[in-house]
Amino acid sequence: MAKTNPGRFFEDYKVGEVIAHAVPRTVAEGERALYHALYPARHALYSSDMFAQDCGLESSPLDDMAAFHVVFGKTVPDISLNAVANLGYAEGRFLRPVWPGDTLRSVSEVIGLKQNSNGKTGVVWVRTTGLNQQDEPVMGYVRWVMVRKNDLDAPAPETVVPDLKSALDVTDLSIPEGLDFTGYDFVQAGEAHRWGDYGVGEVIDHVDGVTLEEAEHMLATRLWQNTAKVHFDATFRPDGQRLIYGGHIISLARALSFNGLANAQMIAGLNSGAHANPAFSGLTVKAWSEVLDKAETDAPGVGAIRLRLVAVKAGAEPGKLRGEDGKYLPDVLLDLDYWALMPI
Amino acid sequence: MAKTNPGRFFEDYKVGEVIAHAVPRTVAEGERALYHALYPARHALYSSDMFAQDCGLESSPLDDMAAFHVVFGKTVPDISLNAVANLGYAEGRFLRPVWPGDTLRSVSEVIGLKQNSNGKTGVVWVRTTGLNQQDEPVMGYVRWVMVRKNDLDAPAPETVVPDLKSALDVTDLSIPEGLDFTGYDFVQAGEAHRWGDYGVGEVIDHVDGVTLEEAEHMLATRLWQNTAKVHFDATFRPDGQRLIYGGHIISLARALSFNGLANAQMIAGLNSGAHANPAFSGLTVKAWSEVLDKAETDAPGVGAIRLRLVAVKAGAEPGKLRGEDGKYLPDVLLDLDYWALMPI
Amino acid sequence: MAKTNPGRFFEDYKVGEVIAHAVPRTVAEGERALYHALYPARHALYSSDMFAQDCGLESSPLDDMAAFHVVFGKTVPDISLNAVANLGYAEGRFLRPVWPGDTLRSVSEVIGLKQNSNGKTGVVWVRTTGLNQQDEPVMGYVRWVMVRKNDLDAPAPETVVPDLKSALDVTDLSIPEGLDFTGYDFVQAGEAHRWGDYGVGEVIDHVDGVTLEEAEHMLATRLWQNTAKVHFDATFRPDGQRLIYGGHIISLARALSFNGLANAQMIAGLNSGAHANPAFSGLTVKAWSEVLDKAETDAPGVGAIRLRLVAVKAGAEPGKLRGEDGKYLPDVLLDLDYWALMPI
Repeated sequence: MAKTNPGRFFEDYKVGEVIAHAVPRTVAEGERALYHALYPARHALYSSDMFAQDCGLESSPLDDMAAFHVVFGKTVPDISLNAVANLGYAEGRFLRPVWPGDTLRSVSEVIGLKQNSNGKTGVVWVRTTGLNQQDEPVMGYVRWVMVRKNDLDAPAPETVVPDLKSALDVTDLSIPEGLDFTGYDFVQAGEAHRWGDYGVGEVIDHVDGVTLEEAEHMLATRLWQNTAKVHFDATFRPDGQRLIYGGHIISLARALSFNGLANAQMIAGLNSGAHANPAFSGLTVKAWSEVLDKAETDAPGVGAIRLRLVAVKAGAEPGKLRGEDGKYLPDVLLDLDYWALMPI
Repeated sequence: MAKTNPGRFFEDYKVGEVIAHAVPRTVAEGERALYHALYPARHALYSSDMFAQDCGLESSPLDDMAAFHVVFGKTVPDISLNAVANLGYAEGRFLRPVWPGDTLRSVSEVIGLKQNSNGKTGVVWVRTTGLNQQDEPVMGYVRWVMVRKNDLDAPAPETVVPDLKSALDVTDLSIPEGLDFTGYDFVQAGEAHRWGDYGVGEVIDHVDGVTLEEAEHMLATRLWQNTAKVHFDATFRPDGQRLIYGGHIISLARALSFNGLANAQMIAGLNSGAHANPAFSGLTVKAWSEVLDKAETDAPGVGAIRLRLVAVKAGAEPGKLRGEDGKYLPDVLLDLDYWALMPI
Repeated sequence: MAKTNPGRFFEDYKVGEVIAHAVPRTVAEGERALYHALYPARHALYSSDMFAQDCGLESSPLDDMAAFHVVFGKTVPDISLNAVANLGYAEGRFLRPVWPGDTLRSVSEVIGLKQNSNGKTGVVWVRTTGLNQQDEPVMGYVRWVMVRKNDLDAPAPETVVPDLKSALDVTDLSIPEGLDFTGYDFVQAGEAHRWGDYGVGEVIDHVDGVTLEEAEHMLATRLWQNTAKVHFDATFRPDGQRLIYGGHIISLARALSFNGLANAQMIAGLNSGAHANPAFSGLTVKAWSEVLDKAETDAPGVGAIRLRLVAVKAGAEPGKLRGEDGKYLPDVLLDLDYWALMPI
């Protein structure tokens, strides 16, 4: 038993430590096809090589969220195996498209530590970077998790809380090299609404819903080599339920947002994210979005739009996020704040 | 909410109008592998590049029905989002194989309109064409659906009912360029029965059965970017059931027909099709075929065989299609009339 | 009905007969991606082209067990359609990696026959070989099954029981051309334990568990074109359960064994295997391994390790295989004896 990975505990992390996560992964056409089978993904730039080429790219890249899932999945054995809670994301940046044939690996630096007052747990902040086979960063993000202590007598580390942006500025975003929306084909993309048609504060109900299935969330989570027991093993939780990987809900909500945001083609930044309530098989998920901000970019024809993407249980009222107590409503599953690129 | 697609209503269609459907799709090895995971597909020409090359093709194409599903899926947001019923298919022709790497898009022309006497619905006929990245047609078919009116006061259009063939003639079929069955390997194909061994009127019980699962029909339907809510959202129908996409049953029955029709390699034409009864998860599907016609072709070693493919619930008697009242029996799911190509 | 395959019965086999199995199959990136979706597979050599190249291979091959499943699946219509029981495996050798783009076919020679004393069944031994498009063998194994007689009056054949090795010797193993573990990256592989760290008799509990789903085992079994009715048709068995393909349990257990055996990268030989108890949807599977033997090889940095891989139902005690009666315990699903290649 000594040969299996027990995971790291709070006292095992040191600020400044760099962790090279295991199991590099080559992604190709198969992962692209599976992404279309697992999510109702229709953004044209990820569906068609021709459409991507007409936007100045060499071909259709892997979906941004698929790239995120691969990079994230590698961190699980080192960061969240003994995590009590996934507390937040910040400063997520998509730096380079992931092309079929690329091999990805992940590296994390510990950038913050804070032991909780109960002495039993602590918060660990890591900045994770995904790299391709040329050692070029493809994406990066900060995540913080609450982790158990194994040795309750281990001394508390010096508290370091990183200074994180509440949201990226548009100048923090990386626009893929060559991206050009001046010849954008709105008919093939599926909707006529351009960047200029969206107003800050506007709420969009994405209408469609998908009922969650055990086989589907497990196929998805496994595909990204995320090994957290709680997603796969019905004997792990006392209630016999398998908790659905939060990233599955992100991908599902993002795909559902096509209906009303078909031209929010590429994700450029993740400002913050919260898995407000757990999701289980049998639930039907719907989504709504709110426009939070808009900005111009230097790329030809390319605007940036900052969106709040909310996944809810079917029946929830679009636009309603929190109760009078300031807490997320019980039918809210996800609250994600991100920047997307859209034709102006 | 104004930004989401409400779909078209009966009064929105005009005869002669051409609709370019959105979201082109590149298909590749991943879609081929998924087709083999989703259906018990064993026709050798779609399983092996070597076998396809020995039949004169450059490599193994995407399964004909997969090509159909991609082309069909694109039409859903424009044609059948507000459809009450999918009434029929005719004049389906497979014009060119779809190769891994091809990018498909769909275009439909409205060729018929007839308002129903109740004034609330009407029938819309469209001729849909799937095109590849060289703008070459890969397949085409006529479909007619019953669509709701939104504005009941909209005037009824002039009735135009297109003149459709009840079945294609063998001379209407396109044989893939280079196809040559003179060196056909019956051992590798899995059965010894050639075109000459089948007699008109013969009924073949395909014996095998597959039980339907929610995750499988949703993965399949999503893969083709078919977005009809009724297939995915358990809260959509009052009975809480997800209606299975009719094309899922077509692909399943066609794959099951391998056992007895292993040499009916390629589908060349769809004469007509009816989804006789709805299919839901938990049902076990079996299939039988009836030989309707046979014809010679100009291609070396290639015969054409016209088949009725019937999908039924397990327990149904092979060969029994309709009751004394002329209606489909309750355990019949699909009645499909098609032309296949077979070694003579 | 005469056109469907009734399968072979015991009296249809002759010692020395060679059966060319039908439906060659091209495997590519899609099958690789699906293998990662279906199993928690993380062995780095099958996950990353870069890692495989650093081990001296041209790229990442298809998982060994995926290659086995494709080769095995083709034999089902000819060998086990009327089998009462799958009795055992022996002398399984992986002779050459299977690369994306390869086309596989299977050939079996009947090497043994023994009618049972009841006169109703008999045992058939076959040696199956999988071949690629260059007619090079990629793997081979012996399997024996109990098959029903159709004609009970058919005379019993001369009894021929092949002389099979209880386990392969290390010199029987084929090491892939070029394999070199001298520059092996243990960090990227995910564990620090090398060949020298394992002792004969050591038992490793792989800790993780996966709950079985109908959709997942059917997708997997179908992907390998294994058509045995009992896996797909809920109306086939009187109890309405679908028996899970034994190979699904092998792949699942092998993938789970990453946690503790991450460096047992390649499977080189299958010494024996028993499906101790049937597996059905809803069960949670865990795994443990026992080190049976170790040997050096001629390849640079490459050691061989002989392992017993045991799949059990969650709750079973690791290391417990048989009861006092010598029979497998009821919560044991699989007992597999194999050789793997590991960095020294």
